[in-house]
Amino acid sequence: MGIGEVNKDLIKERAKCTFNVTELTYFLDGGKDKTLERKERERVMLTKREELFGGTPDEYLSHKEKYENSTRKAVILFSLLRKIQEENNTDLTNYRNLLSGVLGASISQDGSPFGLHYIMFMPVFMSQADEEQQERWLHRALNCSIIGSYAQTELGHGTFIRGLETTATYDPSTQEFVLHSPTLTSYKWWPGGLGNTANYCIVIAQLYSKGECHGIHSFIVQVRDEDTHMPLPGIKVGEIGVKMGLNAVNNGFIGFENVRIPRTNMLMKHAKILEDGTYVKSKNSKLIYGAMVFVRVVIVFDSVNYLAKAITVATRYSAVRRQSQLKEGEPERQILDYVTQQDKILTAIAGCFAMKMNARMLWDTFNVINDQLHKGNMERLGELHALACCLKAISTSDSSLFTARCRVSCGGHGYMVSSTLPATSALTTASCTYEGDNTVLLLQTARFLLKTWRQIDTGPLTPTVEYLKTVSAPGFSYKWENSIEGIIRGFQIVSMKKISSCLNLMTAKVMSGMSQADAWNTISIQLVSAGESHCRAIVISTFHEDMSKAMRSMSASLAEVMGQLVELYAVYWTLERLGDLLEYTSISGADVVKLRSWYEELLRKIRPNAVGLVDAFDIIDELLQSTLGAYDGRVYERLMEEALKSPLNAEPVNQSFHKYLKPFMQGKL
Amino acid sequence: MGIGEVNKDLIKERAKCTFNVTELTYFLDGGKDKTLERKERERVMLTKREELFGGTPDEYLSHKEKYENSTRKAVILFSLLRKIQEENNTDLTNYRNLLSGVLGASISQDGSPFGLHYIMFMPVFMSQADEEQQERWLHRALNCSIIGSYAQTELGHGTFIRGLETTATYDPSTQEFVLHSPTLTSYKWWPGGLGNTANYCIVIAQLYSKGECHGIHSFIVQVRDEDTHMPLPGIKVGEIGVKMGLNAVNNGFIGFENVRIPRTNMLMKHAKILEDGTYVKSKNSKLIYGAMVFVRVVIVFDSVNYLAKAITVATRYSAVRRQSQLKEGEPERQILDYVTQQDKILTAIAGCFAMKMNARMLWDTFNVINDQLHKGNMERLGELHALACCLKAISTSDSSLFTARCRVSCGGHGYMVSSTLPATSALTTASCTYEGDNTVLLLQTARFLLKTWRQIDTGPLTPTVEYLKTVSAPGFSYKWENSIEGIIRGFQIVSMKKISSCLNLMTAKVMSGMSQADAWNTISIQLVSAGESHCRAIVISTFHEDMSKAMRSMSASLAEVMGQLVELYAVYWTLERLGDLLEYTSISGADVVKLRSWYEELLRKIRPNAVGLVDAFDIIDELLQSTLGAYDGRVYERLMEEALKSPLNAEPVNQSFHKYLKPFMQGKL
Repeated sequence: MGIGEVNKDLIKERAKCTFNVTELTYFLDGGKDKTLERKERERVMLTKREELFGGTPDEYLSHKEKYENSTRKAVILFSLLRKIQEENNTDLTNYRNLLSGVLGASISQDGSPFGLHYIMFMPVFMSQADEEQQERWLHRALNCSIIGSYAQTELGHGTFIRGLETTATYDPSTQEFVLHSPTLTSYKWWPGGLGNTANYCIVIAQLYSKGECHGIHSFIVQVRDEDTHMPLPGIKVGEIGVKMGLNAVNNGFIGFENVRIPRTNMLMKHAKILEDGTYVKSKNSKLIYGAMVFVRVVIVFDSVNYLAKAITVATRYSAVRRQSQLKEGEPERQILDYVTQQDKILTAIAGCFAMKMNARMLWDTFNVINDQLHKGNMERLGELHALACCLKAISTSDSSLFTARCRVSCGGHGYMVSSTLPATSALTTASCTYEGDNTVLLLQTARFLLKTWRQIDTGPLTPTVEYLKTVSAPGFSYKWENSIEGIIRGFQIVSMKKISSCLNLMTAKVMSGMSQADAWNTISIQLVSAGESHCRAIVISTFHEDMSKAMRSMSASLAEVMGQLVELYAVYWTLERLGDLLEYTSISGADVVKLRSWYEELLRKIRPNAVGLVDAFDIIDELLQSTLGAYDGRVYERLMEEALKSPLNAEPVNQSFHKYLKPFMQGKL
Repeated sequence: MGIGEVNKDLIKERAKCTFNVTELTYFLDGGKDKTLERKERERVMLTKREELFGGTPDEYLSHKEKYENSTRKAVILFSLLRKIQEENNTDLTNYRNLLSGVLGASISQDGSPFGLHYIMFMPVFMSQADEEQQERWLHRALNCSIIGSYAQTELGHGTFIRGLETTATYDPSTQEFVLHSPTLTSYKWWPGGLGNTANYCIVIAQLYSKGECHGIHSFIVQVRDEDTHMPLPGIKVGEIGVKMGLNAVNNGFIGFENVRIPRTNMLMKHAKILEDGTYVKSKNSKLIYGAMVFVRVVIVFDSVNYLAKAITVATRYSAVRRQSQLKEGEPERQILDYVTQQDKILTAIAGCFAMKMNARMLWDTFNVINDQLHKGNMERLGELHALACCLKAISTSDSSLFTARCRVSCGGHGYMVSSTLPATSALTTASCTYEGDNTVLLLQTARFLLKTWRQIDTGPLTPTVEYLKTVSAPGFSYKWENSIEGIIRGFQIVSMKKISSCLNLMTAKVMSGMSQADAWNTISIQLVSAGESHCRAIVISTFHEDMSKAMRSMSASLAEVMGQLVELYAVYWTLERLGDLLEYTSISGADVVKLRSWYEELLRKIRPNAVGLVDAFDIIDELLQSTLGAYDGRVYERLMEEALKSPLNAEPVNQSFHKYLKPFMQGKL
């Protein structure tokens, strides 16, 4: 990319920032040492700058060329990752950081054909393979001697895992499993990297032994010859075609025609098949949830990363872009000065910070409860599951919503692929579906909430639902108050009342003769809404409480801005969910009028620090890959530079003129 | 596409439909004769089935190949269009139908390089060229001897037209204009077809004569040599690169280096430059708004078409797709049976019908007022402008929202390009930006509303704002009522109170010393919200009133379902805008509880007719181009068929294995 002067408006914005941007960067990274580690990783990556970021931009290539180019880049990038990995230990925190650092903020927003190897194959293998299996494969997987994928979803089955059709039937005579895809709908569909890249795969299948089905289990299956890469006999493998985004992921399909694998290829840390075909149950079938929750934690962190990109682009562009006059005769204004633009962008910034604090809270909660799980304490498993479900749902749907809004806020230029915003949009919207459809996840949260509500009088509640007891206690008195604490209480009351209302509706419908299932289905829109309200209450209070704690060790100037972001987030969602609050709390019309002024006031206060806030995420230009969002703000120059890379601009007249256009214009067609 | 049996679930759905689908199709098309005309157009198009729909799907091609392929297809399609056109007259209605029929439901959801020729170049030329110019160019444009584009937006200027930088300076010594692009930001950016296709272009530039600037005017400019297609001297023209969607549109950029064009190339129906450089003002500068409003009318109709595609796909897929059990032991259910799915899809269907009725209303209003304009009556111009602004904004944002929801409701499969939903999403989100950013348009509507409100006591109001007078009259008494009429009144009151509140806020801020402009900016979020509420009130009441009229000549069974859709639409938006209604009307908590039941009840009633409702749009498979939405419902077969067309599946081992992957896995990189 060209090097030039920094846009004058951006220089001014940076000069008027009231806090120390580096201080905020350290906080966002989790400390100065983490920032330095990240920068070191980036430095290593940039040693291959030309190989990774040069050449014709991917968007001009064909689907096949894109794949080949992404494989080339992935190999360079993951060779570097392998080196970094070898120099570090591989505990989960480090692993998650690597994932976020190298995959999450990947070189391509289209994903990577190796992604699933790291994000699913490895974690699932580590948590489900027994020692002998780890001995046999772990090292080879870690250093990428083999590349794995993870095949669960089938053409006909996603959400309903019990309905999976692929079978693994144990044959004691040869001590093998026979893997089989009985129907078209049983073909595995979606596994990342499986199209043309992976040579191994963890396959989820219905386990049959001695004529009995023991439900779904995991099997490690070699898919391609390690030397020739040819698919092994009986295996039909291919790639599924072009998607809205993530086209470098090389998603594949796979079908099995009575493919035989050794008994020892079933992952047997928990359940087992003995040589004679005897099925040995898992002692603790719930340990398996750990990996699933881990993936959702990673997704929440990823949502923050994606949104951070979108706000960086939209904010810098809005500072550079000038359009229209506020007053006759004045020069055109930076569009960031328009309050409707601030409404779109500053709320997205606040949302990004809020989700960052919640991702950390979820990570901490995960670690605490995961430790308990391994010690046999299952008490908080339901809570962890419900929390991960709703935070995955809310973080992905928020980041999808805010990213789309950032994109549209950049007008036509935000529609250019070179802005990077279309890819970020495509990523965030995908995350609303993968690893659990958000509607289904919120229903699962609601199920936990209704169960909790039924037991409200029978003992202490776990931390994340404790508030339900507080706000429903007989002596609890409450009057709406326009403050953060008042807003949090308000959201807690909304959540409690929705849960209570759902249970009443359920009960009434069942009493009137409806089945539980039909009653549940009939009110499911309200159940989703209850799950969402519960989660929003958690997100706001976590943001407020954890940020308040953090502010104690910040400089006053930074703490002031962080406090404003918390306020903005709380007030924004209050106005967004006014229907709920007016229905269920004592908020008055006069309160609402004041909230609107408060909101407008907050936008005004935060506006001067907008660029500083996104600069603090410190996303280097090479990773941001945006004509609109680069640090120097040379928006128009970059748009033109990128356009000139289009192969359609390489020759003055395209061949289609002679072949089609001219005969048509001359009326000869 | 393969021919096979129709999916059994779809057969059942169609059997249980309670109304006559063909009757509804005739209604949607505007009468049996219109349906037959449409079918005839489709029949003609399908004579070129293989040429238009065969071959490798576009999504696998490179950017350049896509362009070449789209030019090939456009030439075939528009040769057919040219023939149809020659056989018909070319009045505006016919023209709009052709646009919607052939462009709107185009062969490619990525648009067409000829699109702008029809949708902007021709209408603008017809409304702004004088007789001599029409004589010279109109026939050549009509029969595509020349292909035109329309260049208004510049790299640095979109919304603020007065800020355009391109200049056209008159030189009386040669009787020529000198077109010039003084800066990078003055380059025209976005004109459809201009990249590599068009050879003419209408260019909007600041007109200078005798040292004076007369503001922006339109000029017809030859861009490329008619014979060689080489860009003419002084013209820098190219294409702008890959976008989120619409990649067959061939959007271009153009810059001028003192390019000379004859005086007679300024479009001079209204304003003129005489030979000596004297500027003659337009007698009626407002006539020029006609074309702009026309384009917005077309956009509202297009929104309906796009959304019709999305609901067709999502509904049929939801009838075919089975997932999860409602009750243990039962077979998996059609996902359309889940109320959360109905919530997403049936509301989108209702939204599509609502917008259809409003598009018709806008079209009728446009014709009435346009006639008045040409007779010199400007009275309702402001109203027409405000109405077109807000309906463009609401129809595009609704269709974008509902399309995205339909896409996500199809889970992972909706993320496949072969579902067509990603392209439909990309189209609908683009329409929120082009021809006027929705936020800006709603602010323009709000400006009209505040002006109207200031004059509320000074005389009769024009039809679309008449309600403001009614609901603010001193004697007006109102109590919330759970009925369509009650809901419409409620929305009208919300609109009136928001407008009144905005004016009060403005006044208070100006009284306290703030400038008009700053006050306007400060409360602009609330102004946008007022514009949206006004529009929603219009949309609901138009849907209700016009559908009620139409129902009188429908069979009882169809009328019943149409009535349910009106109710669903009204109740859905009531629940969506509950905050407004609770704040500004007398709706009670008990009303809300009943509304939720009413809503659930409506979903239950409409559910059995869902497939019939989308079948009635009668979008043939060739135009729908969706693996998930085809009439026969062979979803999984088509997904696999399409995947197998991927060039990545043409060979068992991709070359990148040998070049990159193997050395990497062997640790040699």
